Amino acid sequence: MDDKGAKNTNLLGNLQLPEGLKELSYQELEAVAAEIRELLISTIARTGGHLAPNLGVVELTLALHRVFNSPQDKIIWDVGHQSYVHKLLTGRLSRFSTLRQLGGISGFPRPEESEHDAFATGHSSTSISAAVGLAKARDLSGERHKIIAVIGDGSMTGGMAFEALNHAGHLNLDLIVVLNDNEMSIARNVGALSAYLSRVRMNPAINRLKEEIEQLIQGIPGVGEKTVRYLERLKDSLKYLVIPGILFEELGFSYFGPVDGHNIRQLVQVFRDAAGRSGPVLIHVLTKKGKGYLPAEEDPLKYHGISGFELPGGRPRERSGPPTYTQVFGETLLEVAKKDERVVAITAAMPEGTGLLEFARVFPDRFIDVGIAEQHAVTMAAGLARGGKKPVVAIYSSFLQRAYDQILHDVCLQNLPVVFALDRAGVVGEDGPTHHGLFDLAYLRSIPGITIMAPKDEDELREMLRLALAMEKPVAIRYPRGQGQGENKPGEPVLPGRAEVLCRGEQVAIFALGPLVAEAEKAARRLSLLGIGCAVINARFVKPLDRETILYWARRVPHLVTVEDHNLAGGFGSAVLELLADEGVQETRLTRLGYPDRFVEFGPQQKLRDLYGLNAEGICRAVTGQLLPVADAGSGR
Amino acid sequence: MDDKGAKNTNLLGNLQLPEGLKELSYQELEAVAAEIRELLISTIARTGGHLAPNLGVVELTLALHRVFNSPQDKIIWDVGHQSYVHKLLTGRLSRFSTLRQLGGISGFPRPEESEHDAFATGHSSTSISAAVGLAKARDLSGERHKIIAVIGDGSMTGGMAFEALNHAGHLNLDLIVVLNDNEMSIARNVGALSAYLSRVRMNPAINRLKEEIEQLIQGIPGVGEKTVRYLERLKDSLKYLVIPGILFEELGFSYFGPVDGHNIRQLVQVFRDAAGRSGPVLIHVLTKKGKGYLPAEEDPLKYHGISGFELPGGRPRERSGPPTYTQVFGETLLEVAKKDERVVAITAAMPEGTGLLEFARVFPDRFIDVGIAEQHAVTMAAGLARGGKKPVVAIYSSFLQRAYDQILHDVCLQNLPVVFALDRAGVVGEDGPTHHGLFDLAYLRSIPGITIMAPKDEDELREMLRLALAMEKPVAIRYPRGQGQGENKPGEPVLPGRAEVLCRGEQVAIFALGPLVAEAEKAARRLSLLGIGCAVINARFVKPLDRETILYWARRVPHLVTVEDHNLAGGFGSAVLELLADEGVQETRLTRLGYPDRFVEFGPQQKLRDLYGLNAEGICRAVTGQLLPVADAGSGR
Repeated sequence: MDDKGAKNTNLLGNLQLPEGLKELSYQELEAVAAEIRELLISTIARTGGHLAPNLGVVELTLALHRVFNSPQDKIIWDVGHQSYVHKLLTGRLSRFSTLRQLGGISGFPRPEESEHDAFATGHSSTSISAAVGLAKARDLSGERHKIIAVIGDGSMTGGMAFEALNHAGHLNLDLIVVLNDNEMSIARNVGALSAYLSRVRMNPAINRLKEEIEQLIQGIPGVGEKTVRYLERLKDSLKYLVIPGILFEELGFSYFGPVDGHNIRQLVQVFRDAAGRSGPVLIHVLTKKGKGYLPAEEDPLKYHGISGFELPGGRPRERSGPPTYTQVFGETLLEVAKKDERVVAITAAMPEGTGLLEFARVFPDRFIDVGIAEQHAVTMAAGLARGGKKPVVAIYSSFLQRAYDQILHDVCLQNLPVVFALDRAGVVGEDGPTHHGLFDLAYLRSIPGITIMAPKDEDELREMLRLALAMEKPVAIRYPRGQGQGENKPGEPVLPGRAEVLCRGEQVAIFALGPLVAEAEKAARRLSLLGIGCAVINARFVKPLDRETILYWARRVPHLVTVEDHNLAGGFGSAVLELLADEGVQETRLTRLGYPDRFVEFGPQQKLRDLYGLNAEGICRAVTGQLLPVADAGSGR
Repeated sequence: MDDKGAKNTNLLGNLQLPEGLKELSYQELEAVAAEIRELLISTIARTGGHLAPNLGVVELTLALHRVFNSPQDKIIWDVGHQSYVHKLLTGRLSRFSTLRQLGGISGFPRPEESEHDAFATGHSSTSISAAVGLAKARDLSGERHKIIAVIGDGSMTGGMAFEALNHAGHLNLDLIVVLNDNEMSIARNVGALSAYLSRVRMNPAINRLKEEIEQLIQGIPGVGEKTVRYLERLKDSLKYLVIPGILFEELGFSYFGPVDGHNIRQLVQVFRDAAGRSGPVLIHVLTKKGKGYLPAEEDPLKYHGISGFELPGGRPRERSGPPTYTQVFGETLLEVAKKDERVVAITAAMPEGTGLLEFARVFPDRFIDVGIAEQHAVTMAAGLARGGKKPVVAIYSSFLQRAYDQILHDVCLQNLPVVFALDRAGVVGEDGPTHHGLFDLAYLRSIPGITIMAPKDEDELREMLRLALAMEKPVAIRYPRGQGQGENKPGEPVLPGRAEVLCRGEQVAIFALGPLVAEAEKAARRLSLLGIGCAVINARFVKPLDRETILYWARRVPHLVTVEDHNLAGGFGSAVLELLADEGVQETRLTRLGYPDRFVEFGPQQKLRDLYGLNAEGICRAVTGQLLPVADAGSGR
């Protein structure tokens, strides 16, 4: 199917969903599949979103809802960005145009959105654990519904998926794992498990077994031709019957597959068979990311998560203006790596998202993609550092949460020189609360020995990365999703633990962090028009704090403001409060701006910042409110 | 060998270690093994420590140092509590009596202690990741040494071990994984992987394969007797040659084993073979925990980590006095579970350590031991909660770090009623920095929607656990290692978000948390003798804070003190500072007592608290210092 020419018969709109799917012929189901593809393409072209993953699971989702009875039966979507088809089939057809928009429907499963979303997901590799919990709860309650976890082969490389498989096999619970094998996570998969699945897919020959049998056959005296033929059949049957699922069988699962994931009839058959089985079942389904839309089939990486594209043709919307922080990070790391051969770059299945594609091309030996395995990435980096290298671990702020223990226990406790590049720090936008990077300062700042920086613009990111690599200890640099500031003014050189005073003023001192420094400067200019003199300080370091500069201003001006693209609890402002308290500074008042103590919704990145007053206007309001505390009383954050 | 009667020939003391081991006969090596066992038993009887795991690896460690050349070759001990023998062989024989004592040698590998400790460990399942990093660093540098990770079968259930195996197989790096299979982690193992290893150990028959072959043999026409015999041999050879290591072989490892882990000659042979191989190798070694000391062989759980025991006989030292928090938790949970069948208890391989043995006996269906798999434990609990149950996840504070993302993303984002019981919060004592629970308030407090409590004594723990289970949302309760307060006074009932005022005073208000409340009361009594009136408030809740009570005292007295068994950065005191700043309270000064911004060493629990002033005396000092700020100037924490 292309993006034009498919006739819209509107079967979908006239069905009672999802039950209505059970009444359709396979031909009608194919037509529904075509309608869904059309709707996915036309909607995501406009809203942006995860196109390729959803095109890949159209038939799979239809077959699941044909066989199982949601919401009594529970379907859990690992990661969840492939749940759009499920959403279309479970009551969200009419609102689908609001996908990922502020106040609209989420791009991920959300139980508060529908009873058909059995479990909220967003991060990888959680679905089997959730399924084990739901299955155990069901059994304890004497209920009998089915529980299905749909997980990609990429997510299967995450350690917690293995923990859950291992445990499910042990408990012998009735549950179904659908392994959606498209030979990709977001980028092309790495790992021995992936190679294993490829062997199953392509040609499941295990050489040792084969040689063993051949030797033995040759050794049998007086074997006739017929016997040899039978033995050849034995050999083949072993290959095909024993080998494909043995890894899962060894863990206690019954293995079905591989099954063509675009053949609804076959899928329905295997789901029915599996539903009749007791104990844990794994169904290995082969799908193609981007299936049915040629541009996405040909470049599933580009169409994995896309910001929108043109129809017809599918050309991704051009972005103009300054480079992204991600690009600047990737370019700078490559430059440094050319001069220092100890630099090694590490990603967890995000070579493009973290800006490392060119690095990987130039230095394939010094680029390591571990797959979706953040824990391993961090401890492996500690090993590299122990071995004399300078590893740079580039992981989104939100995903690095999964390696918190490894950062603390394996890197910082040994004071090893690992640099953490936290892309997507702050609000990320449409991906929403599972993906916002709003906790990193809190979870990192309490770890002894780590240095934490945030650049005010892309030039400063360059400088900070160079400095971090020279510091010979654990360093984290957090920077936001999206484009840089564009017009960068040369500032003071970045020095460890030193802030940068951008302008002086006698009434208020604003300590701003990262991309919000520019907003603080704007605010100061506006406030000066009102006769309010504001100092603006680019904080640069959250740890160690620039004690000297902070104490200087705290003792000089009666009002301080901290501004951060981070949750308030435990963040940068909280660190400043600790310093002031420890130094016994009581004469100044501090207002902290950041996100309040709740999960921030999804929507455009700038709109979210605006919503929470993290812009020049919000800073102006806070400053005037601080200067006029009575007028603003009762607005306590 | 028993604890008496072995003759000490002092081979160990006269050897140049570890090189000298290469010159010994196997008979002499056996004698060294006996000496080491004697030393382990006599030392640990006095110092406490991990007896059974070390008795199990005596021969394994001797064989490793016989074949490999430490420190050029790198040996990484997963978890590390089994590294005592390694320490004895690498320069720490004379200081071994200081094991786990303040200022002595650590119970875990520490690179700062010896160049033979290639990588610091403490938490489970990190060794293969570290080995991958070290191997990659070696290859990039063109070096040629060997890298060996020694990992127990229990640690192998941790997801990050799988992530690392999967990646090592993919990279095809030269490294050796020694799987120390004693069929236990700390308690008896769970999980399908464990069952798989048992099958390999006992009788590696794979039924389907066997049946397949048998059917085919029967189908062959005109087979003579000789052929049948050959085919039987084929069947056997398949079973023994193909099956044992297939799970690891599928992940890209060459598999050797199983090998008798108490036969030095066999171990040396297989290590030599493995050293000659290229690519990743897994050596499956069978050992017995507690080997060579009858009491430990018979009850390896009791002698896993032990506080000391009597010689001869091995009777663990009796503890008198009040019950431990762990016991009180276990008893209370059992009581509640008897009345509420929705309660489910979850442990990650610590049924005894978390006080759940009796619960497991009474409610085997509602007790879940997931193995060493904290991430899975938490997300599975989220699934149980989603399924209508009331899961209680009992995991030590330090180990729960590994499930930070799951707490945030799977439990709190969905606001699911999971109760986290954080045993061993605060300093734990001799296990040291990898095991202290000094970060939980910081990493939990920034998560929206979670409630965090800390009981002042064991009675309050009972109340808090009951309250937590009634709250229908995520709740964490942190409590310390060790015994309760003993004499509990009936206090005000525990209400959500409410502190308890224990005594009033007009000069200072001390907000204390958990076990330090008793110290604050003692301090207040002493200070009253000096004429200083102190209010003492049992904070109870770190989140939500009791705003009303804190603000009342902040506005009433000029000096506040917070006291917590936790790091200062981002902890309880920091939360109080945030509240005061948000409310614009400037008229009071707050002094925070807790641990400074560095990793706390190992040593007796009370000594560590004393060292950092977290006792009545330290609180008195802080209060008098606050009242006399000039005299104490410059002591800034």
